[in-house]
Amino acid sequence: MTSETPAHPRLTVQVVLRWGDMDAYGHVNNVQYHRLLEEARIRAFGEWFHASGGDSMLRSGVLLARQEIEFLEQLTYRPEPIDIEMWVTQLGGASWDMGYEIRDGDALYARAESTLVAFDLASQGPRKLTSDERAALTAALGEPVAMRRRR
Amino acid sequence: MTSETPAHPRLTVQVVLRWGDMDAYGHVNNVQYHRLLEEARIRAFGEWFHASGGDSMLRSGVLLARQEIEFLEQLTYRPEPIDIEMWVTQLGGASWDMGYEIRDGDALYARAESTLVAFDLASQGPRKLTSDERAALTAALGEPVAMRRRR
Amino acid sequence: MTSETPAHPRLTVQVVLRWGDMDAYGHVNNVQYHRLLEEARIRAFGEWFHASGGDSMLRSGVLLARQEIEFLEQLTYRPEPIDIEMWVTQLGGASWDMGYEIRDGDALYARAESTLVAFDLASQGPRKLTSDERAALTAALGEPVAMRRRR
Amino acid sequence: MTSETPAHPRLTVQVVLRWGDMDAYGHVNNVQYHRLLEEARIRAFGEWFHASGGDSMLRSGVLLARQEIEFLEQLTYRPEPIDIEMWVTQLGGASWDMGYEIRDGDALYARAESTLVAFDLASQGPRKLTSDERAALTAALGEPVAMRRRR
Repeated sequence: MTSETPAHPRLTVQVVLRWGDMDAYGHVNNVQYHRLLEEARIRAFGEWFHASGGDSMLRSGVLLARQEIEFLEQLTYRPEPIDIEMWVTQLGGASWDMGYEIRDGDALYARAESTLVAFDLASQGPRKLTSDERAALTAALGEPVAMRRRR
Repeated sequence: MTSETPAHPRLTVQVVLRWGDMDAYGHVNNVQYHRLLEEARIRAFGEWFHASGGDSMLRSGVLLARQEIEFLEQLTYRPEPIDIEMWVTQLGGASWDMGYEIRDGDALYARAESTLVAFDLASQGPRKLTSDERAALTAALGEPVAMRRRR
Repeated sequence: MTSETPAHPRLTVQVVLRWGDMDAYGHVNNVQYHRLLEEARIRAFGEWFHASGGDSMLRSGVLLARQEIEFLEQLTYRPEPIDIEMWVTQLGGASWDMGYEIRDGDALYARAESTLVAFDLASQGPRKLTSDERAALTAALGEPVAMRRRR
Repeated sequence: MTSETPAHPRLTVQVVLRWGDMDAYGHVNNVQYHRLLEEARIRAFGEWFHASGGDSMLRSGVLLARQEIEFLEQLTYRPEPIDIEMWVTQLGGASWDMGYEIRDGDALYARAESTLVAFDLASQGPRKLTSDERAALTAALGEPVAMRRRR
């Protein structure tokens, strides 16, 4: 049978909250969700681009071009890390989209999606993804982000 | 002629950057764009809900349910404030969408859109917008956000 | 024998850096050292005041009255946590001083000292430390912070 | 009589708070006081080192070696800026100490003092202050910071 689902392509990274992520409402502030996503994404780069030297994407440069997030549950500080699952949702020549879910077991706090553009810090312009980078991102390609509401 | 467009409903708020908004790339960090939008939004509440007591929306509670942003130009720290223009893009019974443009004269750094939900901190649930709140948001109703790219 | 050293009173907490802790100089920003110290301190409260209910100090209220820090080495982002060692340097009726060292193995990045005041959120005033709290802080009492330079 | 006191050497900079500076206690978070001081200090560099090119100190590099702060009053978000007064408290060959008061009219929220070291980003070591820089800092030399409590 060929209907076997492929190996689940999601990468799960544990991100540690800080008490200072909370705002005057006593919940993790909406802006800090983006900080948590940034941290998870940077750790994902280390995994996905391991063959290309780990932090190569960060060193050569990468820009965030677009981000979308749906906040589903309020999150309160605790010392235990949360899980951020990440996968690739679309792949272009110089850019890719990636999805995120901020989770703790069954609880789903937020869904998000980013568009990233490979950037050349020297020329200050976009650059083509290398074949190693494309291979890594292709292996992480998964389903669209299940946003509840999209304009 | 009645086809005259109404007075432009955008509210412009000046937001001051901080040197610490920059990251290791030497530009204002993507997460800090959300901090700037949050600050502008809170100042907009003071304007829009003036008749309802200024910070009434903040005191009674308001949740960010969704946010979308397109990063268009890199922004570098300078002591002069930037402009954030805001307007309402859609109005519901307990929620509204609002658009933002982060600008400096002709330069457009980012476009964004948020969904906000009026929240009752006491019952921890959504609440209907009051008629004063609806009137204020209706007066600020404008065009959709001109996102370049939408999934 | 009087030369017995007392049990080493330092509590070591691992704190995880974030890429976003770095500033435009490419090092962990000086302000973020305080964020790291705050996080370590809050985790120390959970340890020290375990018998009093763990986060009792945070719930009843605690104010930072004073902080002093010496920056010794520049710190760069990496996924591995750093160690923050903490101990009590002075104990009063409603307040205590505590020392910190931000370390990674032999590397010492910063030394700091805080004065904390037990606070009663209800009356909005200082409150006496309970006997459980005093016992816990006494057990953590150690040497002064070895500041290189003090005015 | 020539004993007239010199013009008061304090430089006052207005710094704008952000709603997000508040923490779960509903007050401006202690760490964010350091963010406000950083912002004021960077604006002071622009004033003090105007003759040397304004942001010359930032471009050539400057390190914070030590910081001390006393928190005196709790500060709550409001749209109006606060005042941060700054002056020089001690001057060395490659470094200087500076004092700060975070104020709003008669209210005094915090006193602080920093040691700054002129740094050469190229050689990654300290550098001597130029004569222009020394002249500017000498003109700003004032009294010690009136800390209530010093170890």
